Amino acid sequence: MFYIGVDIGGTNISAGAVSKDGELFFKKSVKTGKERNYNEILQDIIGIIGEVRQEAEALKLGNAESIGLGCPGSCNKSTGVVEFAGNLNWHHVPLASDVQKATELPAFLENDARAAAYGEFISGAAKGLNSAVVITLGTGVGAGIIIDKKIFRGENFGGGEIGHTVISMDGPPCTCGRHGCFEVFSSATGLIRMTKGFMDRNPDSAMHKIAAEMGKISARTAFLAAKQGDSAGQSVVDFYIKALACGITNVINTLQPDCLCIGGGVCGEGDYLLNPLKEFVSKEVFTKNSAKNTEILICKLGNDAGIIGAALVGESI
Amino acid sequence: MFYIGVDIGGTNISAGAVSKDGELFFKKSVKTGKERNYNEILQDIIGIIGEVRQEAEALKLGNAESIGLGCPGSCNKSTGVVEFAGNLNWHHVPLASDVQKATELPAFLENDARAAAYGEFISGAAKGLNSAVVITLGTGVGAGIIIDKKIFRGENFGGGEIGHTVISMDGPPCTCGRHGCFEVFSSATGLIRMTKGFMDRNPDSAMHKIAAEMGKISARTAFLAAKQGDSAGQSVVDFYIKALACGITNVINTLQPDCLCIGGGVCGEGDYLLNPLKEFVSKEVFTKNSAKNTEILICKLGNDAGIIGAALVGESI
Repeated sequence: MFYIGVDIGGTNISAGAVSKDGELFFKKSVKTGKERNYNEILQDIIGIIGEVRQEAEALKLGNAESIGLGCPGSCNKSTGVVEFAGNLNWHHVPLASDVQKATELPAFLENDARAAAYGEFISGAAKGLNSAVVITLGTGVGAGIIIDKKIFRGENFGGGEIGHTVISMDGPPCTCGRHGCFEVFSSATGLIRMTKGFMDRNPDSAMHKIAAEMGKISARTAFLAAKQGDSAGQSVVDFYIKALACGITNVINTLQPDCLCIGGGVCGEGDYLLNPLKEFVSKEVFTKNSAKNTEILICKLGNDAGIIGAALVGESI
Repeated sequence: MFYIGVDIGGTNISAGAVSKDGELFFKKSVKTGKERNYNEILQDIIGIIGEVRQEAEALKLGNAESIGLGCPGSCNKSTGVVEFAGNLNWHHVPLASDVQKATELPAFLENDARAAAYGEFISGAAKGLNSAVVITLGTGVGAGIIIDKKIFRGENFGGGEIGHTVISMDGPPCTCGRHGCFEVFSSATGLIRMTKGFMDRNPDSAMHKIAAEMGKISARTAFLAAKQGDSAGQSVVDFYIKALACGITNVINTLQPDCLCIGGGVCGEGDYLLNPLKEFVSKEVFTKNSAKNTEILICKLGNDAGIIGAALVGESI
């Protein structure tokens, strides 16, 4: 017996076979080709599900129980309809029922950030706990909330948009229309924007040489410079961590989950990011004098979290 | 059959008899005398509970089922211990068990903001819904969260401190140690601070005359001036509403409850506050294109919410 998880991204569609406990047996991947229309992409989703079933048969994993589809945008789990996914240009597409018809398996739909959070909760950094918030620092700031071991969605599947909570009124504009959102400062995109700003104002910074060697300004540029003792690079890192700590403390003060997991490329900085971040948060959090506080952890499953979480969405309440 | 609710405030202790459906039959009140020690205040709490039982007997309300105690600060519902209530200078006091021993009735403890939110949910503005966030704009910004008809507490009873989420990094200092918290801008205290600031910079503003007539600068000063066409007063009102909308939108983007209720004295401004606030939020909220969105409402129960909610805490899950 196994569960099929599909993680539909703007670049790749990944799918795999997952055990009831959240072990990923194997995964497959295909380019999304997001410029194509829904029906063409749907055929590739159905195709990759077929490949997963074939390989699972070869591995004698038993029967497929159900399919979970993690998709960006507004996903209505009740109807299985992707109401809006800007990145894929999908408007009201009945993804779950289309997949169900083609595969003759029960198919469930979930927002990709929620699915990834559920994956980390089932078998990753938040395994065995009661509640968790998982924040992914990527192009944007994605978030998924688990409360009492269940995926929290808010009414109308609109909750969890933590990336679009303002931490700096009148700050730089966000893609959502607000100004100064958490995402504006704490996404990789935001980090790169701030790095560019500091580079412009500091022509002697080591960041220029590092960027030239790497051929681009990336989310690593400022961290690499800071580690070399570059003061402008350090200023970028300090500000980045301060803003990230601010957003994270807001989440903890609101939800106080057992743990708050951060994921995404910038977490590759490891303790260099995590230690000052934890120090900041521990000073700021409202319950700083409590015996027990929210633990800040780095996600364990990387991109597999989305497949694992999606696979088991049908099993969640 | 009835339930006894006690709302322990810094100024008054109020208690009443409440029906299972959240109807308040009557209430009584006594001064808190918060400068006194815990045992003295405890005797008054037990005393007012006795008075409620006597009057309930006279009214033939039947038996008292249980007592709910709404208390400011960190309240551990599991142990019934008030871990810390700064306003009352209580540290680790076993309030629920002390009340239970003295009254021989089951006694439950809850944080006062959560109790008040539960009251609005049971029989006030949020009655009949699935989820709600209740925000009280008073000396501070208190909040209570109801999810799936249950009081949300976070792990270790530390969730719901929405007043201490930062909306303006590096903003004015907050009592919690952070800077630029929602509470700094949206509490009555914050409104008065901003009013004073604008008055200092605008010696010709009508706010000076209004404050002189009222004998003080209050949360109403700027609103009264704005209604007279005073531009500095209008600037205070505009900024106050903008910051309030920012904090409220953050809550909606995170939790998307069925409704968000605001309470506290400033809500006496009615539509003059509510209409521009709703307009701001509707433009800012992430789900602005959804068919259904969080409704913003004004609380209905006033100070009774705390008694009603506390009374029924034992009945909540």
